Amino acid sequence: MFTDKLIERIVELRNHSIVGIDPHYSIIPDYIKRDLIRDNGDNIETKTEILYTFSREIIDNTYDIVPAVKPQIAFFERYGSWGLRALERVCSYAKRKGLFVIVDVKRGDIGSTCEAYSQYYLGDEEGSLSCDAITINPYLGKDSIDPFIEKCIKGEKGIFVLAKTSNKSSVDIQDKICDNKKIYEHVAELIAQLGKGYEGERGYNSIGAVVGGTFKEEGEKLRKTMKNSYFLVPGYGAQGGKAQDLTGYFNDDGLGSVINSSRGIIGAYKSEKYRADYDERSFGAAARRAAIDMRDDINRYLREAGKIAW
Amino acid sequence: MFTDKLIERIVELRNHSIVGIDPHYSIIPDYIKRDLIRDNGDNIETKTEILYTFSREIIDNTYDIVPAVKPQIAFFERYGSWGLRALERVCSYAKRKGLFVIVDVKRGDIGSTCEAYSQYYLGDEEGSLSCDAITINPYLGKDSIDPFIEKCIKGEKGIFVLAKTSNKSSVDIQDKICDNKKIYEHVAELIAQLGKGYEGERGYNSIGAVVGGTFKEEGEKLRKTMKNSYFLVPGYGAQGGKAQDLTGYFNDDGLGSVINSSRGIIGAYKSEKYRADYDERSFGAAARRAAIDMRDDINRYLREAGKIAW
Repeated sequence: MFTDKLIERIVELRNHSIVGIDPHYSIIPDYIKRDLIRDNGDNIETKTEILYTFSREIIDNTYDIVPAVKPQIAFFERYGSWGLRALERVCSYAKRKGLFVIVDVKRGDIGSTCEAYSQYYLGDEEGSLSCDAITINPYLGKDSIDPFIEKCIKGEKGIFVLAKTSNKSSVDIQDKICDNKKIYEHVAELIAQLGKGYEGERGYNSIGAVVGGTFKEEGEKLRKTMKNSYFLVPGYGAQGGKAQDLTGYFNDDGLGSVINSSRGIIGAYKSEKYRADYDERSFGAAARRAAIDMRDDINRYLREAGKIAW
Repeated sequence: MFTDKLIERIVELRNHSIVGIDPHYSIIPDYIKRDLIRDNGDNIETKTEILYTFSREIIDNTYDIVPAVKPQIAFFERYGSWGLRALERVCSYAKRKGLFVIVDVKRGDIGSTCEAYSQYYLGDEEGSLSCDAITINPYLGKDSIDPFIEKCIKGEKGIFVLAKTSNKSSVDIQDKICDNKKIYEHVAELIAQLGKGYEGERGYNSIGAVVGGTFKEEGEKLRKTMKNSYFLVPGYGAQGGKAQDLTGYFNDDGLGSVINSSRGIIGAYKSEKYRADYDERSFGAAARRAAIDMRDDINRYLREAGKIAW
């Protein structure tokens, strides 16, 4: 069962944080681009080799610290079939390193169409990405989520359905109030209902939720609505989410959320906090340092709140 | 300007209908699979060659009848990087045949991430799919749509934002009522607002809406909310949408919607209506027949309603 296994690794590493692999071209050190373009020419195959090389280095420097990575597919899909090939290699590499792989795809469509997405992302046939979990967009309603549920129950996979996202415009639709509840709260109730009865050994099911780390009060409230759902929490660091505001995203057992940071980790070498100690050649070491600091930052506040899982 | 050019072709062909290329493996004639597997082996490369061969045949039989095709990416993405390569070939082939290509991707993410999607789907750099328009999911709000708008204004591209989808569960989120309006009506207002001021020669802008063809009254109401937005209407045929219920999706100028049919066209050879006259070897001819019948069916009711664009 996906969430049981994920929790086991979280406890083993004493780490609730995960690394978002969002290889925007501008975040990748110049020397990687220069060397690969010099050797292989300036073409799309080289561009995607650059994505892979960068992502692999991030994985090499963090795989023994974090339980999971979350590649953002858009930065690979940007380069179409070539980019998707790079993503497939990144996911395969991460799995070989013992990492759980949550691919951020935010797919959502009518049922028969989602079945096709489900087969690629969570299936195990030849050519499937077969990652551990993906993110899902709920705008099309329950029948757009159903095709993924079976893979969660029988296939040891997980999904994280967007409830409340971390961006400013998330209020446009998600915060509209209907029957005294915001839309994201209705989505949260749907998520809780879909997962009901599928809890594993630690009390959590594999029908999780995306809950942005930039809205403290909302996060705490949603924790109560979906007490058996695991949260994937984006928005820590570069987007403004702070560890002290995230303790409410956890249950009293010290579990319930994985906190994602993307730019804050993979672009640490460029950041104000780390750039004095690292340069572009040591971006991997900077990412490792940032990942350790993030782990400690979150654990510190959870300890203060008395929410200890180990 | 995308919508002006699309309308020009609609009027030229006297056809408001488009063909949805949803090559679910089970809809593809056995002989195509058998022949290609015999010649090339049963592997993922062959599977995607099957998708391409089938799609090309559909295009060959309909390109001079319909203004546009709408490939559903999920059925290609199902086979990952190989599948996306097949989609790239399908889109390229369709464009060479003079068809507008609207790729049904329903993407939606935070702004910086959508910029990457925008570059691949609507950009014109090496390796970009560079299709004419895509579908967009609005759950993350305005800042998730913005990155596509510039491509619509300066790049001669279009988007169709999901307002009210054709599936049954669309009610789960989209029909929730807030401030006396359903969520899809709020989305419709956002779409109208985003497109305002960008109207082309025929009075339409390129910030369009997806409005399911299975909800007659909703469609008519949304037509009024978004009078300058072009609609992409799924749900005709196999999903239950009928031409007589769609006249309200058009403005008095006889324009305003393209009606999509997928299974009803590409799987016509298997359908009750056409299977007596066609077999799997003549699936292309059956698709052509079904496309002509659909064109005439829609035009007949529009004529009766006095909504004539030519």
